[in-house]
Amino acid sequence: MILMQPVIVINLKTYAEASGRNALEIAKIAESVSQETGKRIIIAPPMPDIALIASSVSIPVFAQHVDNVRPGNTTGFVPPESIKASGAKGTLINHSEHRMIHADIDELINRCRALSLTTIVCTNNISVSKAEAVHEPDYIAIEPPELIGGNISVTDANPEIVLGTVAAIRSISKKVGILTGAGIKTGKDVAKAIELGTDGVLLASGVAKAKNPREVILDLCSGIR
Amino acid sequence: MILMQPVIVINLKTYAEASGRNALEIAKIAESVSQETGKRIIIAPPMPDIALIASSVSIPVFAQHVDNVRPGNTTGFVPPESIKASGAKGTLINHSEHRMIHADIDELINRCRALSLTTIVCTNNISVSKAEAVHEPDYIAIEPPELIGGNISVTDANPEIVLGTVAAIRSISKKVGILTGAGIKTGKDVAKAIELGTDGVLLASGVAKAKNPREVILDLCSGIR
Amino acid sequence: MILMQPVIVINLKTYAEASGRNALEIAKIAESVSQETGKRIIIAPPMPDIALIASSVSIPVFAQHVDNVRPGNTTGFVPPESIKASGAKGTLINHSEHRMIHADIDELINRCRALSLTTIVCTNNISVSKAEAVHEPDYIAIEPPELIGGNISVTDANPEIVLGTVAAIRSISKKVGILTGAGIKTGKDVAKAIELGTDGVLLASGVAKAKNPREVILDLCSGIR
Amino acid sequence: MILMQPVIVINLKTYAEASGRNALEIAKIAESVSQETGKRIIIAPPMPDIALIASSVSIPVFAQHVDNVRPGNTTGFVPPESIKASGAKGTLINHSEHRMIHADIDELINRCRALSLTTIVCTNNISVSKAEAVHEPDYIAIEPPELIGGNISVTDANPEIVLGTVAAIRSISKKVGILTGAGIKTGKDVAKAIELGTDGVLLASGVAKAKNPREVILDLCSGIR
Repeated sequence: MILMQPVIVINLKTYAEASGRNALEIAKIAESVSQETGKRIIIAPPMPDIALIASSVSIPVFAQHVDNVRPGNTTGFVPPESIKASGAKGTLINHSEHRMIHADIDELINRCRALSLTTIVCTNNISVSKAEAVHEPDYIAIEPPELIGGNISVTDANPEIVLGTVAAIRSISKKVGILTGAGIKTGKDVAKAIELGTDGVLLASGVAKAKNPREVILDLCSGIR
Repeated sequence: MILMQPVIVINLKTYAEASGRNALEIAKIAESVSQETGKRIIIAPPMPDIALIASSVSIPVFAQHVDNVRPGNTTGFVPPESIKASGAKGTLINHSEHRMIHADIDELINRCRALSLTTIVCTNNISVSKAEAVHEPDYIAIEPPELIGGNISVTDANPEIVLGTVAAIRSISKKVGILTGAGIKTGKDVAKAIELGTDGVLLASGVAKAKNPREVILDLCSGIR
Repeated sequence: MILMQPVIVINLKTYAEASGRNALEIAKIAESVSQETGKRIIIAPPMPDIALIASSVSIPVFAQHVDNVRPGNTTGFVPPESIKASGAKGTLINHSEHRMIHADIDELINRCRALSLTTIVCTNNISVSKAEAVHEPDYIAIEPPELIGGNISVTDANPEIVLGTVAAIRSISKKVGILTGAGIKTGKDVAKAIELGTDGVLLASGVAKAKNPREVILDLCSGIR
Repeated sequence: MILMQPVIVINLKTYAEASGRNALEIAKIAESVSQETGKRIIIAPPMPDIALIASSVSIPVFAQHVDNVRPGNTTGFVPPESIKASGAKGTLINHSEHRMIHADIDELINRCRALSLTTIVCTNNISVSKAEAVHEPDYIAIEPPELIGGNISVTDANPEIVLGTVAAIRSISKKVGILTGAGIKTGKDVAKAIELGTDGVLLASGVAKAKNPREVILDLCSGIR
């Protein structure tokens, strides 16, 4: 994983500006920018939009969350098998807005691996990041909750947490990719995240609420050489 | 609502046989049977399939669940606004496999009404059915948990619970539609449900796991005159 | 129930000023004021303090919450049987800070009734209050969340919600007692609550954080003739 | 911690046979056996019994669970400060019957440490045990869910999981104590658990449902030399 090109993961959350028809439009913009620039972009749309977007664009579509339930009598939940059947290639797990039980995170990483779904586990500090590295998800995204949605990127506000996280995760596993989250807005933030030793970024409002998403995504891509 | 034609609501849950491509196929069969027979059919697919199916069939697509959260910073949750933007026309609320907080049910009914989304609130006994009637959702679906997924329909096993529920709900509101759930499999079950004074049925495995869904849905429709 | 004398229910929540030794002290003060004035007072201490306080005072001790789980393999939960065994006489259910699943509220009311435990179901608006009246708990406590912990009592800020709630509950059941909650601080508030047709009050910080709890409780009692 | 004498932790869960008056009786028996034998015994009674038992016996009383909420407006929850005020010396965290969010476990360990409360984090497999070792609770109790409440002790059924857990935890931290849980019933089980390198045992039904708890606890103590 860590030999791969850096990646930009766009979480559309449930913003009105990025739901339904708007989600599809942003996904198509992301696809076109990815094709033009050759950079890796992943898009995580609102849950109901996954299958439609996965069937409409060539870049990987991820879920924002999966539940550790079995397929079948689990009305309204989303087991990994559901997103797989709908064309998703992976999922966020344990986002700061959707925290999960430790044993469920561990089990979901294994279930997703068996289904060839890529996992991005979100974490809130160095200790939890290091602990999650034990389960070896494909990626760990470090998102200090106090910075999410804010105007200062974590790389500016708190580069030590990024460096400390990289060191802590690497002390456990060399296989886990690392993403920098929280407050990423520009290509400069992306470049800084990579310089600090991470393998890409996870961001949301910077794209989802942008007046011109194409410009923003192009700028983000410029941060990857 | 109660002046309308009876309705057949098909909940695909998260069955593998009814997810992704399979969900779309069953939805198209339901659409074609609805067009042939002139009967009302609603389909509730797995969450990630909503937008794709809503854009592919003319019958109403419902969500299996919505969360009482606001659009925006609610990663992986599904506010009513998300399903609306994805083309859904309504939603199940408080399914027996996904029970909800009372105050959230009340608030979701109001939020859905404001969004012109039809609500079907699932309930487990006469007392809860009568209580939910106070909030006047569009429909209440009575599903005794002990019968769900079983081989005996609630109308055979426990017609009193259906009659008692109808009386209890009507003592509170004349506007709420009533659906019979749990164990519905055949047109005969549908006819019995209507005879007992309800406005249609809610079923799942009978269609979702059927070898020949077209035959099953045709049979269900035959129960409505 | 509604023929009984009005009641003052004191919820100590988990305030540091009202936990452990402090909870016991406030309970003893409440007992002594109750004995002096002849007024009915109920105290709901932090969960770990129930048995100790129940064995130390003669006024009824209530739990702040119970879980709809069975006794046995339910580590760290609190089934009604646990509080009964520890000497509690009743419990709050569905407090605004601890909302519950509708079907669980219904079932807990029945389980508590079978155990001779008094139930006080908290509700947030007229519609939910009326709906809960269907289940006929011993009391319904109306607590508009926006007023809880504030300085204005619900009887001053919103007497209509109290009057409306009384009318709505009475349209369903004559047996359910009604308590006024949220922002109650003084004997004047208590008198107003009773004047509006309710059977007592539920309050928390006014006593739990008081510098002189005896004075406050005496004042509250003065509101009951 | 690991230099200390082995410990026997008795979780009374919410068994009727071990609630209220019965909980107090078992606690006193445990205290008397501890005094006679000189062995370390910890007792975790039902939540409402904590303060009463802590004020009645000299052996340490633990909670079965704490919630990661703040003291104050958290009705019916149990923050660490509540159990501290009630005389508890520590708590189980993340029991298999009460799983917790990963970030909450991490934060609770820190909050308990600041309050001088001992933490026992329960885990379900080697990977989660190793991950929790990163947070350095005082103890990790390994309890494979499939064995809990059964008749075969984990040390007989699956000694590899115990050995593997010890090795995995020690690869992360030398400071964390390790307890063997699930199916422990006899002094022989205790001796085996210690032989496998753990620092004691966590058990429940073997004592809570025993006809003669004194005999059982005496036998358990005989496993510690």
